[in-house]
Amino acid sequence: MKKSIAVDMDGVLADVETHFLNWYNEKNAAHLQRRDIKGKTEAEAFPKPGIVREYASTKGFFSSVPLMPNAVEGLKILNEHFDVFIVSAAMEFPQSLVEKRDWLEMHFPFIHWQQIVFCGSKRVISTDFMIDDHPKNLNPFKGTGLLFEAFHNVDIPHNNRVKSWQEILQYFKLSSS
Amino acid sequence: MKKSIAVDMDGVLADVETHFLNWYNEKNAAHLQRRDIKGKTEAEAFPKPGIVREYASTKGFFSSVPLMPNAVEGLKILNEHFDVFIVSAAMEFPQSLVEKRDWLEMHFPFIHWQQIVFCGSKRVISTDFMIDDHPKNLNPFKGTGLLFEAFHNVDIPHNNRVKSWQEILQYFKLSSS
Repeated sequence: MKKSIAVDMDGVLADVETHFLNWYNEKNAAHLQRRDIKGKTEAEAFPKPGIVREYASTKGFFSSVPLMPNAVEGLKILNEHFDVFIVSAAMEFPQSLVEKRDWLEMHFPFIHWQQIVFCGSKRVISTDFMIDDHPKNLNPFKGTGLLFEAFHNVDIPHNNRVKSWQEILQYFKLSSS
Repeated sequence: MKKSIAVDMDGVLADVETHFLNWYNEKNAAHLQRRDIKGKTEAEAFPKPGIVREYASTKGFFSSVPLMPNAVEGLKILNEHFDVFIVSAAMEFPQSLVEKRDWLEMHFPFIHWQQIVFCGSKRVISTDFMIDDHPKNLNPFKGTGLLFEAFHNVDIPHNNRVKSWQEILQYFKLSSS
């Protein structure tokens, strides 16, 4: 029987970091770059109260988010060797639910709707592995967690840090060729 | 620490049986009643190919579904004694996602968005208890399953069958008064 993996969307499949930066810079005539937000929390990185919630609540935000590099190819390979579930804490933003499902269907047509989970808290999820950029999701997880690097977690120690989809495949000893 | 319970929506909180019957009768000038469909599968109960999928895909179907008797009072009590998650296999019908979230917010305002899970397969859900009307969801479940009676499961044997929200509260030795 295949081992199971819960794969996060934002910060793992979807490049919300780039998307937030672009939105923030455009709306605020700012010039924030990746290096400016590294090691900061979301609230510190985007110093306008409620701005992250505001963008995430905007119609079209999640349907237009760019892909993380090599996410499509990487997930395809993972999906051949594991029982994959895409698990996104999407419930806070109701309008994101359909946008996120459509976005997955567009970019990852090999993912069946039975493999998608939108939740509030990930405490209820039980799989063998979980790939996520938020330690708060990995900490209560009983399986093996992989922390996907993001600006907000670079200074948080973790045994299984992965910085790219290539590193995910390497971790599982899977080849991308 | 509180024990956790996954509570299904359709057939447990939402009276889809009545809703389907009403829609079916109205659209087909039929006079199906509860006793006519008892012990049948969905496909046998509504003998028009694809009709269940068609209704479930109709805009407004899930936002207008009536409540199961005593579901609000029962869930409120359960929510005080357990770590409750509302778990619905909603992913098959994208338009249902927002309707179901709004419906929960309207009828069960004491349920936080962090307690809601919309999934495809429930295999990924890990709680101490699960209340569901579909044996296919309870069979792979590792905790204790309670089968909520529905027309399609009356002939399927189950050790923990509950026929109402009163019986759920009785099972957990909780009083509704």
